[in-house]
Amino acid sequence: MSEFHFYHPIEVRYGDLDPQGHVNNSRYLTYMEQARIQYIHQLGLWEGDSFMDIGIILADVHITFLAPIQFKQVVRVGVHTVKMGIKSITMEYQLEDAHSLAELARGSSVVVAYDYRNSQTIPIPERWRQVISQFEGALLAPASHSGS
Amino acid sequence: MSEFHFYHPIEVRYGDLDPQGHVNNSRYLTYMEQARIQYIHQLGLWEGDSFMDIGIILADVHITFLAPIQFKQVVRVGVHTVKMGIKSITMEYQLEDAHSLAELARGSSVVVAYDYRNSQTIPIPERWRQVISQFEGALLAPASHSGS
Amino acid sequence: MSEFHFYHPIEVRYGDLDPQGHVNNSRYLTYMEQARIQYIHQLGLWEGDSFMDIGIILADVHITFLAPIQFKQVVRVGVHTVKMGIKSITMEYQLEDAHSLAELARGSSVVVAYDYRNSQTIPIPERWRQVISQFEGALLAPASHSGS
Amino acid sequence: MSEFHFYHPIEVRYGDLDPQGHVNNSRYLTYMEQARIQYIHQLGLWEGDSFMDIGIILADVHITFLAPIQFKQVVRVGVHTVKMGIKSITMEYQLEDAHSLAELARGSSVVVAYDYRNSQTIPIPERWRQVISQFEGALLAPASHSGS
Repeated sequence: MSEFHFYHPIEVRYGDLDPQGHVNNSRYLTYMEQARIQYIHQLGLWEGDSFMDIGIILADVHITFLAPIQFKQVVRVGVHTVKMGIKSITMEYQLEDAHSLAELARGSSVVVAYDYRNSQTIPIPERWRQVISQFEGALLAPASHSGS
Repeated sequence: MSEFHFYHPIEVRYGDLDPQGHVNNSRYLTYMEQARIQYIHQLGLWEGDSFMDIGIILADVHITFLAPIQFKQVVRVGVHTVKMGIKSITMEYQLEDAHSLAELARGSSVVVAYDYRNSQTIPIPERWRQVISQFEGALLAPASHSGS
Repeated sequence: MSEFHFYHPIEVRYGDLDPQGHVNNSRYLTYMEQARIQYIHQLGLWEGDSFMDIGIILADVHITFLAPIQFKQVVRVGVHTVKMGIKSITMEYQLEDAHSLAELARGSSVVVAYDYRNSQTIPIPERWRQVISQFEGALLAPASHSGS
Repeated sequence: MSEFHFYHPIEVRYGDLDPQGHVNNSRYLTYMEQARIQYIHQLGLWEGDSFMDIGIILADVHITFLAPIQFKQVVRVGVHTVKMGIKSITMEYQLEDAHSLAELARGSSVVVAYDYRNSQTIPIPERWRQVISQFEGALLAPASHSGS
């Protein structure tokens, strides 16, 4: 997994824990979602007001759990974009202990550009493509074989 | 994806919804978890009392989102075991509308047999292997190439 | 606490539990909310589609916890309306074990009639007043001293 | 409501929001819980490791909702102890916008000193009484009429 230019810190809440005393698996998606939204917010792609303008819908997620997350840990979630197709964006995530930097989980997601007002998928807006490519320091062009 | 011998119904809660008005992605893991635990409970592998005896820990999940889940839908989650390694069990899931049977999402998970009292992974207990194989109607033997 | 004409069953989810192994306190509000929404849905006051039409906003809640709720329990939540002011409706709740009928918690809430499209409180619609009064079997008139 | 010597900041998560686009009511209990646990942790009354040692169980909560909480807000939760009985501790909470200091909600809770290893209520340990009284700057003695 390559380097991350964006990290978002997450405070583990008591309410995130399950009977095993560590963070419940569903919360990993919550942490990844929070980091993803802060990523597009920091890049200026969503202003944070209207949820009709959030511009993406989740199509696919994958998580590999490496170590349980404890209440006392502070987590930071690295997010980066690794691929942009015509309509889809693939991001990767790394959940780390913010102090020790021990890797706790890694994940990936595919989101699809989405017009919530008209309930339909759309091509990735050119501005998204430019801003993300610039931020990630590489031209993430649509691969010729990528149909979505 | 093959057939399911076990389904668990889930009532969508208002509290599962997010600002887009449909079920938040993290809840898909909650629904899969609930179905998985009811599956091992129905098979007599966990009696439902001590969480120290639950016997498995989650290592990996994957979800493909096919259609948004609405508040008024009743969801049912199909669960079946597709593979047992030395220590790991691979399950597949299908989230369906319980009335129309429309497929809403599909998922998979890898769990590892785990002794919570000693905090270590263990080989799948022989009883688990027998009960699950019998229930699924096929001998799910450890594949020779499966190291986990 | 008086009698209930409406009960809604709740399946306890593994995801509702906290490190003490029983249902986390925040979920009691989720259970009460789910029962409250099903109550207004059953009474025909909300059709279940647009959340802009849900018609009420929560102003105040109170819960008394009587016994921990375990994973294996099935809970049912009794809901009834005990008072209607000009703009506010006071409901009471009882969380019970659906099998033993042991009382697990009791609660109350005040909701205010609310027009989500215009973001303002409104007087309780006459239809709500009639339907609820009829269902509860008593004329729940606005008390003369009730200012909200 | 009197002054607070302890505040805990909460990041609003996308996963805390409901279809109305603001923080779901159940999360107010999550926020209060998180602040309460950080309060007893900061006072040295719980070291943050074993949940068997957390020493209190929730008996009663009350929340008054004053303003919706939006995604972009940072919340801070003020916590203070207003009364200690023989076995019970009454705390009050204030949820504020951390920037504008606008009051968003206020709440209270009653917790009971609890020995989780033996599943029974206990008198408030003398050390808790001393530490909390000292922190709050007043001798919070058991009122003579307080039976719990």
